[in-house]
Amino acid sequence: MSQNIYDNAKFFAEYSSLDRSVKGLDAAPEWPRLRSYIPDLKGLDVLDLGCGFGWFARWARGTGANSVRALEISENMLNRARSMTNDTKIVYTQADLDNTNLLKHGSGIYHVVFSSLTLHYLANLPALIQQVQSSLKPGGTFVFSIEHPIYTAPSKAEFITDEASGREYWPLDNYQKEGLRVTHWLGAEGVQKQHRTTASYVNLLLKAGFQIREFDEWYPTPEELEKCGWHRVLQRPVYLLISAVKN
Amino acid sequence: MSQNIYDNAKFFAEYSSLDRSVKGLDAAPEWPRLRSYIPDLKGLDVLDLGCGFGWFARWARGTGANSVRALEISENMLNRARSMTNDTKIVYTQADLDNTNLLKHGSGIYHVVFSSLTLHYLANLPALIQQVQSSLKPGGTFVFSIEHPIYTAPSKAEFITDEASGREYWPLDNYQKEGLRVTHWLGAEGVQKQHRTTASYVNLLLKAGFQIREFDEWYPTPEELEKCGWHRVLQRPVYLLISAVKN
Repeated sequence: MSQNIYDNAKFFAEYSSLDRSVKGLDAAPEWPRLRSYIPDLKGLDVLDLGCGFGWFARWARGTGANSVRALEISENMLNRARSMTNDTKIVYTQADLDNTNLLKHGSGIYHVVFSSLTLHYLANLPALIQQVQSSLKPGGTFVFSIEHPIYTAPSKAEFITDEASGREYWPLDNYQKEGLRVTHWLGAEGVQKQHRTTASYVNLLLKAGFQIREFDEWYPTPEELEKCGWHRVLQRPVYLLISAVKN
Repeated sequence: MSQNIYDNAKFFAEYSSLDRSVKGLDAAPEWPRLRSYIPDLKGLDVLDLGCGFGWFARWARGTGANSVRALEISENMLNRARSMTNDTKIVYTQADLDNTNLLKHGSGIYHVVFSSLTLHYLANLPALIQQVQSSLKPGGTFVFSIEHPIYTAPSKAEFITDEASGREYWPLDNYQKEGLRVTHWLGAEGVQKQHRTTASYVNLLLKAGFQIREFDEWYPTPEELEKCGWHRVLQRPVYLLISAVKN
């Protein structure tokens, strides 16, 4: 089973105060790029893997999606998501994506599968990606973001500043060593992720029967940089965004 | 015009003494993977971009290719390549790939375009990739290796060892800053490369009308590691290998 740190009360309180938790999609600087990968949802059936507070699910319905099935491991997050809508065409379900059956409602039933910053938590990703492929209609689209493999790889994932030159760099090591990484985040020690290389993500998709349609190592435009202040993202990518289409 | 450091006598002497220069493909640890991307060449027409000493061109003919057109900027390398064969179905031609017309012999004429460790020297790569696509027959394959973007990115591309812990890491910075990198290699100062992100390579291919077929951030198997000794490649990738198919 995946770690469920979002149901740790202290962590949840910290997470809930993040800009993207309070203000939703428009506070996520990578959202405009990710949104550009999503087809017109009018009348379409959508699956959301790791829905969090349900910002995407509500947005999808707002743009005309016929239905959204939204899965999430954290009861805290699901309760908050449920409290924010009374739309009966969004079905929120508790699910551990490392150990779930996406096909229990049938195969070939979704037009779009979406996942934001979730898949890098999963040890059992190959099985999930195969299920995503089976759950999509032919020609269906799988759009997701993950923490970039350059970001997840290091044994100690913190920038270093060279005192003599002032140069700031990301100490990359262990890139090819896939598997568990334990980091601290939002005041919590022991946040567990699964590092995979970029090649592994691409090959999982190709082998499952997807074509790569879009591929972006997101970084801010000068205007976005002004707003989000993430200058370090220019030194090394933090998110990888992919759109893949079922063959 | 691309830099032509291979026609610098001292650099050429150093390069000529590399294992892969003396012994050819089998001395290149990434070759088995790259070879696995190449279709059965029997009867096929092949273009080789940056052919060096012609090891690939001769191998391709040895496996049954009908013809190989082999382009190279360095006269030193072409002369050596020409001296190593009298096969009239290999045509060696001097060409600066930043400023050449691949289509002067026609479009849709090659079954396979191959390039080993050459494209990361090119400032004008988008135009070349579009020409490669046009020069291929429908369904044709473009197989290439490049220095990995993680390898080309840093402002100072040298491993650092943390003295306290002994931890060795690759100081990644400037990843999103594409363009010229000047390094030293084989005793030469001022070797010029063009850094591009992985996303840029993938998107150049997608936008030119290719599908990604294979994608590998090469690293050695334990047996290969025994032979090549490149343990640091496990910390950060050094080569990116891609196979793409013309739609």
